[in-house]
Amino acid sequence: MLANTPKPPYYAVIFTSVLNDPADGYDAMATEMLKLAEGQSGFLGFESARNSIGISVSYWQDEASINAWRDNSAHRIAQNKGQTDWYRSYRIRVARVERDSVW
Amino acid sequence: MLANTPKPPYYAVIFTSVLNDPADGYDAMATEMLKLAEGQSGFLGFESARNSIGISVSYWQDEASINAWRDNSAHRIAQNKGQTDWYRSYRIRVARVERDSVW
Repeated sequence: MLANTPKPPYYAVIFTSVLNDPADGYDAMATEMLKLAEGQSGFLGFESARNSIGISVSYWQDEASINAWRDNSAHRIAQNKGQTDWYRSYRIRVARVERDSVW
Repeated sequence: MLANTPKPPYYAVIFTSVLNDPADGYDAMATEMLKLAEGQSGFLGFESARNSIGISVSYWQDEASINAWRDNSAHRIAQNKGQTDWYRSYRIRVARVERDSVW
């Protein structure tokens, strides 16, 4: 359930969001987007949790793989629908993972 | 509910975990640790969600403030109790936030 990422450095995209209520179709889209992301070059792993807010962290080999995923055409459609239908607000932070520890 | 962090660069500590069941006293400790962290120099914000896994992201001005929080004595006690009592597993990733977007 926790992502088994390689030795740093690599990149993390921290996506935090508040959903509209209702957010019909959101879960199906999220499942589909995760499947698509897993097939992208440079994808390293994914962790997600939601209660009052949602936090999804995807891990990537480098910035080029993040940008390619951002520009994926099916992902673009989901991003647009996210803004019009699903998200009340969100933040995306792109960060370079420099060190980690596992227990 | 989403953290209003300043313009990058700054740092994120991505803490992902799976709890033991039961994890008595965990919620009270987590609340107390957040209060303590908010009083630390260099603390910029915090976001947290949990369902099957927990993800907590704390934001910091620089690595020195992250290290000072790691070494805080009350936090050290909580870390030890986390390993003996609360967490089945966890990962900590320290990352430098390079860019962000808000919607």
